[in-house]
Amino acid sequence: MLNFKFSIPTEVFFGKGQLKVVAEQVRRHGGTRALICYGSGRVKQQGIYDAVCAKLAEKGISFCELGGIEPNPRIKSVRDGVKIVKSHDIDFIIAIGGGSVIDCAKGIAVGARYDGDPWDLYLRKGEVTGALPLGVVLTLAATGSEMNGTSVVSNLETKQKLPIRMPFLKPRFSVLDPVYTYTVPPRHTAAGTVDIMSHVYEQYFSTVSGTFVQDRLAEALLKTCVAYGPVALREPENYEARANLLWAGTLALNELLTYGKTGDWGTHMIEHALSAHYDVTHGVGLAILFPAWMEFTLEKQTCDKFHALAVNLWGVAAGADRMAVAREGIARTRAFFSSLGMPTQLREVGVPEEALPAIAKTTVEFGEVGVYRKLDEKMVLEILKRAY
Amino acid sequence: MLNFKFSIPTEVFFGKGQLKVVAEQVRRHGGTRALICYGSGRVKQQGIYDAVCAKLAEKGISFCELGGIEPNPRIKSVRDGVKIVKSHDIDFIIAIGGGSVIDCAKGIAVGARYDGDPWDLYLRKGEVTGALPLGVVLTLAATGSEMNGTSVVSNLETKQKLPIRMPFLKPRFSVLDPVYTYTVPPRHTAAGTVDIMSHVYEQYFSTVSGTFVQDRLAEALLKTCVAYGPVALREPENYEARANLLWAGTLALNELLTYGKTGDWGTHMIEHALSAHYDVTHGVGLAILFPAWMEFTLEKQTCDKFHALAVNLWGVAAGADRMAVAREGIARTRAFFSSLGMPTQLREVGVPEEALPAIAKTTVEFGEVGVYRKLDEKMVLEILKRAY
Repeated sequence: MLNFKFSIPTEVFFGKGQLKVVAEQVRRHGGTRALICYGSGRVKQQGIYDAVCAKLAEKGISFCELGGIEPNPRIKSVRDGVKIVKSHDIDFIIAIGGGSVIDCAKGIAVGARYDGDPWDLYLRKGEVTGALPLGVVLTLAATGSEMNGTSVVSNLETKQKLPIRMPFLKPRFSVLDPVYTYTVPPRHTAAGTVDIMSHVYEQYFSTVSGTFVQDRLAEALLKTCVAYGPVALREPENYEARANLLWAGTLALNELLTYGKTGDWGTHMIEHALSAHYDVTHGVGLAILFPAWMEFTLEKQTCDKFHALAVNLWGVAAGADRMAVAREGIARTRAFFSSLGMPTQLREVGVPEEALPAIAKTTVEFGEVGVYRKLDEKMVLEILKRAY
Repeated sequence: MLNFKFSIPTEVFFGKGQLKVVAEQVRRHGGTRALICYGSGRVKQQGIYDAVCAKLAEKGISFCELGGIEPNPRIKSVRDGVKIVKSHDIDFIIAIGGGSVIDCAKGIAVGARYDGDPWDLYLRKGEVTGALPLGVVLTLAATGSEMNGTSVVSNLETKQKLPIRMPFLKPRFSVLDPVYTYTVPPRHTAAGTVDIMSHVYEQYFSTVSGTFVQDRLAEALLKTCVAYGPVALREPENYEARANLLWAGTLALNELLTYGKTGDWGTHMIEHALSAHYDVTHGVGLAILFPAWMEFTLEKQTCDKFHALAVNLWGVAAGADRMAVAREGIARTRAFFSSLGMPTQLREVGVPEEALPAIAKTTVEFGEVGVYRKLDEKMVLEILKRAY
C-alpha cells in the first residue's frame, strides 16, 4: 500500500428533499451572485431548476443561468460561462445535472480565475491557480464528479477531450436526491451503471500490491451496480435501487478506492479519444471498450486481479485453471453490460472502422496510457479493433 | 436507506514517515501552544514522542505533556488535562496513542471550553459548546476515534463509562503510520482486531433496510480483519497486514458505514458497563460479549443479516435451513476471536458471577439499549449469563 493523504472536504446531503439546503450552503460558502449551470430540459421539467431559484431568491442570492450544456461538454460552453461570470461578477457556481454539467461548471470555475482562454488550462499551457466555489445538485448516478476535483472537457475542433485535476475543484457541497434520477432514460441509467463500474475497474486494476481493503471496497461497489442496475432499468422509480446506485457512483470516484494505490485509466483515455472523435456517450463507449481492454490485458502475469474479480464479483468457482476463471469473469462483465442494453461493438455506435487509427493516435497524444498495462499506439489500435 | 449528511473534515496522513507533517498541521490549524497527551511508555520508547517534540520545536510551537493516560481513560485524567490547558493557555491538543488517549484528549478539548467539572458534559448536566482543535498520531489499529467525533470516558467512582458525540470533536488531522503498530503486543493486536470487527457489526445489524452498498462495504472491512488479524499476530512487522488493519479500523468508525442507516450499539453499551465495573480491555470484553449477543438476538425475524454475514464473510454455503446457516456464522465468529487468543467467557477475565446483575443494571441506567433488538435489564442479564 502506498502512502496517501485522505482529504474529502465536500459535504454531501443525501436523500429525499435535500434540495432545501442549497441556498444556505451557497451562503455558508460566501456566495451572493450565482451562476446556475444545467444541461437538458429535464431539470426544468422536473421543477429542480425552479426550486433552486426559489431557494436562492429567498436568501437574497441573485443568479443567472447557463443552460444547454451538452454531453461531453464542450470548451465553448466553458468559454460562454466564463464570460457570464466575468460580466456579472459571479462568486458561486451551481451545477444541476450529471457529470457533463459538473465538469463544465468546474471549467468555468477555474476559467473565472484565469485571464486567457480556458482551454489553455486543459492543455497545460496556462496555470490553474484558483477556482470559484462550486455546489452541485446531482441528477444522474454515474460521474463521481460531485465529490472529486476533476473536470473533463472536449474540444471538437481539435478532437481532444482533456482533464484538469485540482483539490480545490472539489465541490463545497453536493445534493444527492435519488428521486431526481427516476426520470433518467433507460439508456442513460444503463450507461451510468457502466460508468460507475468502469471507474471502479480503473482503480481495481493497479500495479500496487497489498491493497486488500481497497480491493474489497471496490468489489462492494461493483456488487451494488450488478444488484441494482437491472432493478433501476425495470423499475425506474425504485428508491432503494436509485439510492444505492447514486451513493455507489459517488463513492466510486471520490478517491476512497484509490487511496494507497494507483489506478490504470487506460480505457478511459481510449474512450476520451473515441468520444472526442465521435461524441459517443461516455458510459456506452466504456461498455464497449472495457471488455476488450480486459481481454487484451489478461495474461499469466496479470491474471490475479482478473481471477479475484471473477470469483468475488461474479461468483465464478475458483478452479485449477486460473486463466479460464479469469476469462469467464470477463465474459460475465461483457454479458452484464449487454444485459443492460448496452452495445458491445464500436460498429454499433456509428464509428467507421477506418477511423480507428486516428482514435488510437489521439489516445496516445501525450504519451503511453495505462499503468496496469502500459499501452502504446499499436496496442490501443489492437484494443479498438477487438472492440470493433 | 435514510437521508444523511456526509461530512468528514479530518485529513488523514497515512503511511511510513507521515509524522513529518505534524507541526505544519498544528500551525495550519492555528496551534501555537500544544498539550501532548499519551498513555504508555511505548510512544516514548519508540521515539514517537521525541520526534513530535522536535518537529514542534522546529516550528516554534511550545508544548507541555500529559502522560500515563490509562486504558478506559478516567475522568481524572481529563480533569488533569483541563487544568494544564487552562493554566498554560494551550490552544491545540495532540493525542499520541490509541482510542483511550484520543478519547481522553477529546474530553480535555471540550473541558477546556467549559467552566465546570468536565464529567458534567458526559452526564449531559453541562452543555458542550466548543472544543480546542485536536490532532492525532495513532499507534493502534482499533478505535476509529482518530476520524470521528466521539469521546468515551470512565468514572470508576460512579462505575460509569459514558460518551460525548460532537461533529467538532473530529480531529483536524490524524497521522496513521502502520510502522507504529509493529510493537503493539499480541493481546492488544487481537483485541484491536475484535474492536474493529465489533464496530462494523454494530453498524451492520441495523433495522434500516435497503442499505446494500453500506452492508457490502461493511463486509469488505470484516474480510480485511479476518485476513490480516492472524498475520499481524504471527508477523508483527508485516507492513501489509498492519496497514490494512489500520486503515480498516479507521474506515470502520468514521461514519462511512453508518451513513444512511442506524446502528445497534447494544453490545457496546453492555461492554461499557462491564469495563466501568471491571476495567476489562474494550476489545476483550467485546470478543466475549458479541457472540453471546448474536446468539441471543438470532431469531427467525432477525435471521437475514446473520445469514448474509455467514455466507458473505465466512463463506458458509447458503442452504435451505437459514437459521442453521446463521448459527454457523456466529460459531465462526466466536472461533475466529478464539483463534486470535481472545477469551470466550467472562469468568476468564476475573468477573465474578454475582456481579452480573449490577453490570446489567448499569447498562440500562439511561434506558433500554440496542436497536436491532431492544434490550431491557433482564435481557442484558441473560446475555451476560450466556457470556459467563
